[in-house]
Amino acid sequence: MSYAVIFTSLRTEGHDKEYARMAEKMDELAAEQPGYIDQETVRDASGFGVSVSYWKTLGDLKAWKANAEHLLAQQLGRDRWYRWYKVRVCKVEREYGFELQG
Amino acid sequence: MSYAVIFTSLRTEGHDKEYARMAEKMDELAAEQPGYIDQETVRDASGFGVSVSYWKTLGDLKAWKANAEHLLAQQLGRDRWYRWYKVRVCKVEREYGFELQG
Repeated sequence: MSYAVIFTSLRTEGHDKEYARMAEKMDELAAEQPGYIDQETVRDASGFGVSVSYWKTLGDLKAWKANAEHLLAQQLGRDRWYRWYKVRVCKVEREYGFELQG
Repeated sequence: MSYAVIFTSLRTEGHDKEYARMAEKMDELAAEQPGYIDQETVRDASGFGVSVSYWKTLGDLKAWKANAEHLLAQQLGRDRWYRWYKVRVCKVEREYGFELQG
């Protein structure tokens, strides 16, 4: 099926504009990569966020992890933007949904 | 390793207190279930949310899905609380993290 990368994180304080710019840039860049399917990101007012990106293969998500611009963003993330983060690489085994009608 | 259930959703408008009460109750109930590991939930001001729960086995998360009180909450979710939702059942294949020192 597909793969999901669950990225949960807590922002440090400050660097908001710089962070927002980079986050937007990385979202755009990710969407251009081979095997990219979708991305869902949400962060609340406390700075806690969950971002999930979906990829066709494990190779696709590994290639994105090793992308040069993305590597720089990851480094800046550790240096400045995140108090902590966790990454889970997952295989999507089943998916289903619901949508309100009318 | 472990399993993750990624629940992404958009809330309808209204029923905020009722929803918050039930969400809290379900978080507590989930945490009491066999095989429960952890849960991470975030919803932004637009009503978009991502909630990820982690379970030791596929059987554990299936048992939670079939829990009677949880089934009622799921039904109310479709009737009243969600415009749409998506559920992805995933096998966690790798996890790593970072924490700011000092």
